[in-house]
Amino acid sequence: MNSSLANLSTEQYMLIYNAFSFAIATFASSTLFFWFGRSQVSNEYKTAITITGLVTFIACYHYFRIFESFDAAVTYKSNTIEVTGSMFNRAYRYVDWLLTVPLLLIELILVMRLPHSETISKSITLGSAAALMIVLGYPGEVSGGINSTRFIWGSLSMIPFLYIVYSLYVGLNASVENQPKDVKDLVVLARNVTVASWFFYPIVYFAPFIVDLNGAGAFTVVELGYTISDIVAKAGFGVLIYMIAVRKSSTTA
Amino acid sequence: MNSSLANLSTEQYMLIYNAFSFAIATFASSTLFFWFGRSQVSNEYKTAITITGLVTFIACYHYFRIFESFDAAVTYKSNTIEVTGSMFNRAYRYVDWLLTVPLLLIELILVMRLPHSETISKSITLGSAAALMIVLGYPGEVSGGINSTRFIWGSLSMIPFLYIVYSLYVGLNASVENQPKDVKDLVVLARNVTVASWFFYPIVYFAPFIVDLNGAGAFTVVELGYTISDIVAKAGFGVLIYMIAVRKSSTTA
Repeated sequence: MNSSLANLSTEQYMLIYNAFSFAIATFASSTLFFWFGRSQVSNEYKTAITITGLVTFIACYHYFRIFESFDAAVTYKSNTIEVTGSMFNRAYRYVDWLLTVPLLLIELILVMRLPHSETISKSITLGSAAALMIVLGYPGEVSGGINSTRFIWGSLSMIPFLYIVYSLYVGLNASVENQPKDVKDLVVLARNVTVASWFFYPIVYFAPFIVDLNGAGAFTVVELGYTISDIVAKAGFGVLIYMIAVRKSSTTA
Repeated sequence: MNSSLANLSTEQYMLIYNAFSFAIATFASSTLFFWFGRSQVSNEYKTAITITGLVTFIACYHYFRIFESFDAAVTYKSNTIEVTGSMFNRAYRYVDWLLTVPLLLIELILVMRLPHSETISKSITLGSAAALMIVLGYPGEVSGGINSTRFIWGSLSMIPFLYIVYSLYVGLNASVENQPKDVKDLVVLARNVTVASWFFYPIVYFAPFIVDLNGAGAFTVVELGYTISDIVAKAGFGVLIYMIAVRKSSTTA
């Protein structure tokens, strides 16, 4: 890990540094956007929008921590990249996902306005599956390196992952079909954005078994990829949720 | 104490570090959730929701302090755990509980909507018992180690603890039975979550008399256990209080 940090080029270092700062600004501003917009949707969608803002708020907190951790681990001084010996804590991402991924699914369920009992049961089952998926991935991530621990925990983590994908496409299909005509496309898009952006995470997780991710180039790709995926899955997805809530509010009003 | 910090493995250190950061994010986001949701409940439940958010706000502050204290006491540099000599202040937890535990009981009383005089009397007696419980536990905790001071103060602290458990199950039973049908299960669940999550605290308090808690493994279990108990007892319990308030608001509206 530290060897890949030490080998970062100036361009790679700057790109990561600026991407983290970009993520902080994006998540902070999207949080404010959602919370201001909360007053513009009708009562039954306010909780969905509160949670949409919470997801980006939590991500903002973690990108701030990630930025500080990166800044403490690598410094750029007198045109030279220096590794300080401080740890770059990659696990902040897991802590973030443990909170935000269940909430992202709950956002989608809330904005769909399912019957009351279904809202609660789907929130609990999908939310728990999402939390389980992250918890199972963690031991593999911190085991450090390419080994059977990473492979076993990662594979176990794929079970809830595939269950969520299945639930979104099959279990929720009838509810998606029953959405009002003017928002149905947006709901389908929100679901697809979720699943498509999520596929980046297991790809990165299992990539070390196929290609060497220890180099500085791979480190850069992974950190930038996570950052872009997080922005799409949280802020971009949140905008879709907000648009659905606004549209549904105006048709019911 | 410092010997158990020095013997932490990298995995244990990371787990504690990330758990504290997770708690900060959880409490900050649940505070905002409750305070936004405050506008979605009817007037008579607004105070309960304000206090629910205050409890998680206070916990957020203390977990920030605990995180900073841990970070100052132990550093991870160049793949080595180093004890700096700074104190890891475990007493922050007592300061937190002294404020939050009485408020947690008051939340439950407020959301039950007892007659006015009973709300006040129950808040005072249960709130005072909770504060007394924490104050009595403190001298034993700071006495450091396994001795009669810890045992005597801990035992005294159990008197108000058992009084609270008794009051919740016997004294409040008639009021629980009188709750509207659609929230009665939630009120029972909230009461059970409170008592179940609280039992972790005396277990940890008295465990040193039975098993050696000085090792790094025991330190990790205790810190993670406190963190999980706090999250369940404050944020999880708060979500139940919020759900009760929302449901009762919609039936009266």
